[in-house]
Amino acid sequence: MTTRPSGRAADQLRDVRFERHFTKHAAGSVLVSFGDTKVICTASVEERVPPWLRGQNTGWLTAEYGMLPGATGSRNGREAARGKQGGRTVEIQRLIGRSLRAVVDMNALGSRTVTIDCDVIQADGGTRTASITGGYIALVDAMDSLVKAGKLKTSPIHGQIAAVSVGIYNGMPVLDLDYAEDSQAETDMNVVMNEAGGFIEIQGTAEGHAFARSELDALLGHAEKGIGELVEAQRSAREG
Amino acid sequence: MTTRPSGRAADQLRDVRFERHFTKHAAGSVLVSFGDTKVICTASVEERVPPWLRGQNTGWLTAEYGMLPGATGSRNGREAARGKQGGRTVEIQRLIGRSLRAVVDMNALGSRTVTIDCDVIQADGGTRTASITGGYIALVDAMDSLVKAGKLKTSPIHGQIAAVSVGIYNGMPVLDLDYAEDSQAETDMNVVMNEAGGFIEIQGTAEGHAFARSELDALLGHAEKGIGELVEAQRSAREG
Amino acid sequence: MTTRPSGRAADQLRDVRFERHFTKHAAGSVLVSFGDTKVICTASVEERVPPWLRGQNTGWLTAEYGMLPGATGSRNGREAARGKQGGRTVEIQRLIGRSLRAVVDMNALGSRTVTIDCDVIQADGGTRTASITGGYIALVDAMDSLVKAGKLKTSPIHGQIAAVSVGIYNGMPVLDLDYAEDSQAETDMNVVMNEAGGFIEIQGTAEGHAFARSELDALLGHAEKGIGELVEAQRSAREG
Amino acid sequence: MTTRPSGRAADQLRDVRFERHFTKHAAGSVLVSFGDTKVICTASVEERVPPWLRGQNTGWLTAEYGMLPGATGSRNGREAARGKQGGRTVEIQRLIGRSLRAVVDMNALGSRTVTIDCDVIQADGGTRTASITGGYIALVDAMDSLVKAGKLKTSPIHGQIAAVSVGIYNGMPVLDLDYAEDSQAETDMNVVMNEAGGFIEIQGTAEGHAFARSELDALLGHAEKGIGELVEAQRSAREG
Amino acid sequence: MTTRPSGRAADQLRDVRFERHFTKHAAGSVLVSFGDTKVICTASVEERVPPWLRGQNTGWLTAEYGMLPGATGSRNGREAARGKQGGRTVEIQRLIGRSLRAVVDMNALGSRTVTIDCDVIQADGGTRTASITGGYIALVDAMDSLVKAGKLKTSPIHGQIAAVSVGIYNGMPVLDLDYAEDSQAETDMNVVMNEAGGFIEIQGTAEGHAFARSELDALLGHAEKGIGELVEAQRSAREG
Amino acid sequence: MTTRPSGRAADQLRDVRFERHFTKHAAGSVLVSFGDTKVICTASVEERVPPWLRGQNTGWLTAEYGMLPGATGSRNGREAARGKQGGRTVEIQRLIGRSLRAVVDMNALGSRTVTIDCDVIQADGGTRTASITGGYIALVDAMDSLVKAGKLKTSPIHGQIAAVSVGIYNGMPVLDLDYAEDSQAETDMNVVMNEAGGFIEIQGTAEGHAFARSELDALLGHAEKGIGELVEAQRSAREG
Repeated sequence: MTTRPSGRAADQLRDVRFERHFTKHAAGSVLVSFGDTKVICTASVEERVPPWLRGQNTGWLTAEYGMLPGATGSRNGREAARGKQGGRTVEIQRLIGRSLRAVVDMNALGSRTVTIDCDVIQADGGTRTASITGGYIALVDAMDSLVKAGKLKTSPIHGQIAAVSVGIYNGMPVLDLDYAEDSQAETDMNVVMNEAGGFIEIQGTAEGHAFARSELDALLGHAEKGIGELVEAQRSAREG
Repeated sequence: MTTRPSGRAADQLRDVRFERHFTKHAAGSVLVSFGDTKVICTASVEERVPPWLRGQNTGWLTAEYGMLPGATGSRNGREAARGKQGGRTVEIQRLIGRSLRAVVDMNALGSRTVTIDCDVIQADGGTRTASITGGYIALVDAMDSLVKAGKLKTSPIHGQIAAVSVGIYNGMPVLDLDYAEDSQAETDMNVVMNEAGGFIEIQGTAEGHAFARSELDALLGHAEKGIGELVEAQRSAREG
Repeated sequence: MTTRPSGRAADQLRDVRFERHFTKHAAGSVLVSFGDTKVICTASVEERVPPWLRGQNTGWLTAEYGMLPGATGSRNGREAARGKQGGRTVEIQRLIGRSLRAVVDMNALGSRTVTIDCDVIQADGGTRTASITGGYIALVDAMDSLVKAGKLKTSPIHGQIAAVSVGIYNGMPVLDLDYAEDSQAETDMNVVMNEAGGFIEIQGTAEGHAFARSELDALLGHAEKGIGELVEAQRSAREG
Repeated sequence: MTTRPSGRAADQLRDVRFERHFTKHAAGSVLVSFGDTKVICTASVEERVPPWLRGQNTGWLTAEYGMLPGATGSRNGREAARGKQGGRTVEIQRLIGRSLRAVVDMNALGSRTVTIDCDVIQADGGTRTASITGGYIALVDAMDSLVKAGKLKTSPIHGQIAAVSVGIYNGMPVLDLDYAEDSQAETDMNVVMNEAGGFIEIQGTAEGHAFARSELDALLGHAEKGIGELVEAQRSAREG
Repeated sequence: MTTRPSGRAADQLRDVRFERHFTKHAAGSVLVSFGDTKVICTASVEERVPPWLRGQNTGWLTAEYGMLPGATGSRNGREAARGKQGGRTVEIQRLIGRSLRAVVDMNALGSRTVTIDCDVIQADGGTRTASITGGYIALVDAMDSLVKAGKLKTSPIHGQIAAVSVGIYNGMPVLDLDYAEDSQAETDMNVVMNEAGGFIEIQGTAEGHAFARSELDALLGHAEKGIGELVEAQRSAREG
Repeated sequence: MTTRPSGRAADQLRDVRFERHFTKHAAGSVLVSFGDTKVICTASVEERVPPWLRGQNTGWLTAEYGMLPGATGSRNGREAARGKQGGRTVEIQRLIGRSLRAVVDMNALGSRTVTIDCDVIQADGGTRTASITGGYIALVDAMDSLVKAGKLKTSPIHGQIAAVSVGIYNGMPVLDLDYAEDSQAETDMNVVMNEAGGFIEIQGTAEGHAFARSELDALLGHAEKGIGELVEAQRSAREG
């Protein structure tokens, strides 16, 4: 029978931790860990909106993603030095932004832009799902700080989301792949869901051979379980 | 009861057409139409590989996507003039490339690079799925031309793929959204499958509210039906 | 005696065709063919002007030129992917813009910008002259659509232009060079004229040895004949 | 009767001066003045060729053009700071390079690249024609220095070229337009010729209305006269 | 009498801490804190050298500097998204690289490149001096790991360096300015010294009025004291 | 005993010359020579300020630096063609701008931007100090022209600055290094001072080994002497 490199059960998450108020300047700041994957997520609020929203009394949320050059096994070149963000980066930050926009009431936010910055300081697989899951906490903290500062009556957050990866490793559907699994996986899927089990985003790719509907169903089952636990972990972190 | 702007049934594709040998220089060249969405797909073969594959006697396939400035209702700025490809473009061309690589035996291709260029000349929703579906035909034609020219013994294509969009429009799961539907859809999903019904790629996004597992199942059902028909249409075009 | 690769007479144009309304979104849209050279020309109208014309109640016309990667014998890299337009592209689109501006009354156009996009889908020599000649039709159609829509009382077009290449091939002055001739020509000249035989633009280059005044005169004679026929072809297309 | 702002006769050049060996590092270095237009032209030689010429035992010549920010009436932004060369710059440096390549025997040059840099330090019309005319001197001086250094047996220069602008100002064909004329000209033409009166390049543009064949003939007559005088001035400078 | 916002004595450093092995992938990885300024410094080793050093059996060290968008009071835009590194970034990373190259024997390093990445996660003044001081520890740890791995016989580090800022705040020379002081300072100076009290780099700027030789002497005195303490702190961290 | 390649005494400047009104368009224009180093410095005035100063009735001064490709022994690539300014350029132009801002009363300047452009036409060491010293003259001339034109009542310049390099060459502290010395120097320092002997900027770098406090003192002594003479030379040029 197949075992996972980490010895985890097929449907077992890595240790998940949220270190809130990790830095002091941003309105929300969280160091999220999915095992050895560590991402600093900050939420910054600016009292202005992009040009296409001006004068509409509505807000915006956008996300940016980066990876420190030393975060990976062999150094990955700094995108600022290369003069452009790579395709993978663009894809990931668009996913983070779309996902988090799904739980923000933009009218209630008012003419403000929230920017979620997710900077990976140590990578071990699942950086985009850790970013979404941790970015959610940074976002909520930032919105609460606006309420506390009297700038908003109530928080414009109307739901809770978390994200996890699932995949087929050595023929076995597994939850929350680390790098050792991810680099070998036949199928890789990222799932974003809300606290009620609704889907926000599904992105699945057959790396090796095509996957069957039954495999898809197994993967979605793992994802539902994992996200249920992540939602709980977020709640604990928020109350702690 | 909801009706679609086009009057189509919920699980009905638009007219699909493939105009092979649309231009004369590229090894494969197809004008694909999904209704009013029209994309020129060309497959070009170069006798070299990217740096990271040199000396490994294996090939590569990559895809690029573009949209003519006049292809949309209001002119969309030329990316070459802006000096960079936008995030949407990057995301789409990565999807096209990943999908088509799934059916190419890179060792059999040898030290060659195939580039699939998909340029939208008229946009009406579903440009990325039309690109994949038409790009497949251009790819196969290009490989056949290599065989005919004696450069390859047999075609390195080991499967057939097609792609289609599905989504929830006015609460109703529908197949192959046109622009009028796409711009209003609550959920939008692109599905790439092979001729045996295996999944190559799934990308689903809740645009409005989260979608339920039952909705996901209905969408996948539509996608399976649509892709079955597209696979048939590709076969007819290839024989025609 | 020298013969042309195509068997044409020295002063004979290739088959010229204009397919109006080639795509549906742009205000003007023409597929122009000079033999195997095929260019999609669209004219888009935006209700704004560049910064330096604001508040002056006058309009502007600009042109952009591109070539699909698969349009040439060996794939030419996508400028959007390289992050900049090449020198040849810049030179061509400036020529197209200058030429077409010569027949537009900018005050009569009002505070609008017309963008002529010329995208070569198949190249066989003479892409810039085909672009100007076809772009003129797209421009006129776009202006007529503004009149029809009640946005303009009369069309701001006050003349008709067409363009053709002439050159010296194997010592013989010839009209409308195709790629086989162009790549061997000793002298290459592009001429833009109006319907009254006035010159709008002349760009001649000695590729091999310098050309004499008598050769220049012969080339201009060919150009005058060719443009006369192109002006007729434009008229037929407009009436068709 | 029309008079020129400078009081010159219609077919009169401005004072033309060549200050050879203007700077000490480049193989050829000339400060050329056409009246108040002053351009530093340097010719640098590198013992390598562009990738597409490697191993062919042939050389290359290329040109680059720039304008100091303070060279014009109102400061023109530095292209290095903007991060790209403008369309006008690209067009001009391509013209300079093409023109000078016409008199170099690339096989005789051997595996070397000559770069002609033309940097305008004071602009008053005609910067491109001054650049070609002065760049020729820098080029010849650089080739002579290679001969003197024993790197070449004989100079690979097999002809002499010069360039001048002609145009129609207030209805009158004039030679060598200064800025006051150039900014008002109805037609503007740049002509490059060799010492035998052969044409290397003609670029004429109708700025206002189209120009007639008779006007073109008058302009070419002025150009022939002017270039004859410039060729003489180059000879004197070379002997001085 | 003037007091510092933090209540520190004029010649008192902030709390300085080095958290070695902060991340697991890079050969050296340190989180350095100068009070509330926190920088992740990693040292990565690649078995290749820049083109200009190839075949010379010598190594190279370079540094890159960045700031997370959320590291400052108001969000500072991501340089990767803007497509270029700003002038301040370029200046700082050149300073870090020059300073650390001063203590590396490049021949002993062999054909390797060490990259020091300094990424500020929280900024409160003095980020460049913290980067140099912490980068030194990361560098030493990385070199020791090469020795441990048998790739080098001995460490190529032949000295120890640290850096500190000094400045004139409210007329008083002070050591190690925090942001509250830095933003008001009349003179700001960064000093890099080695463990023997030799100067590696001095960069002093009069922000308000020019500073006198006597003021410069006082600042250098503070710098010498501060760097003595930093060198001690580095030693303790290395032994810890 | 060590001698300098030029035969100069250790504390001897090169011949310094200022050619005012070198070009005619810019408000201030100076060709400054420090021996064989020649820089064109122009000061241009625009009646607008950068965005962050709008509506504050205060002005700005910025500087840009460039080097003609032919200014150095082997051609240095044009930054405009490479599409970005290099790190050295950025560092130098920031230094020039900071230094000159130190003597301008920005409120007295009013809502204007002065741009100092320093373009090296011949390089032989010390281009940045020549740029500052010559840029000062161009700046003063430009401000005087504003006064003469009635746009300012009095000049907003409230001090005089000059800059010089000092360094340790073959163990000997020397003043105003030329390229032969600079490329061999163990320590290189640029000093900017005002006419009263106050320091505006000090930037010293140990190129070989660290330098001692006594060496620093000797270098500063040379700098003070040299700047005293440069200040005199500026005065003579202004009166001449």
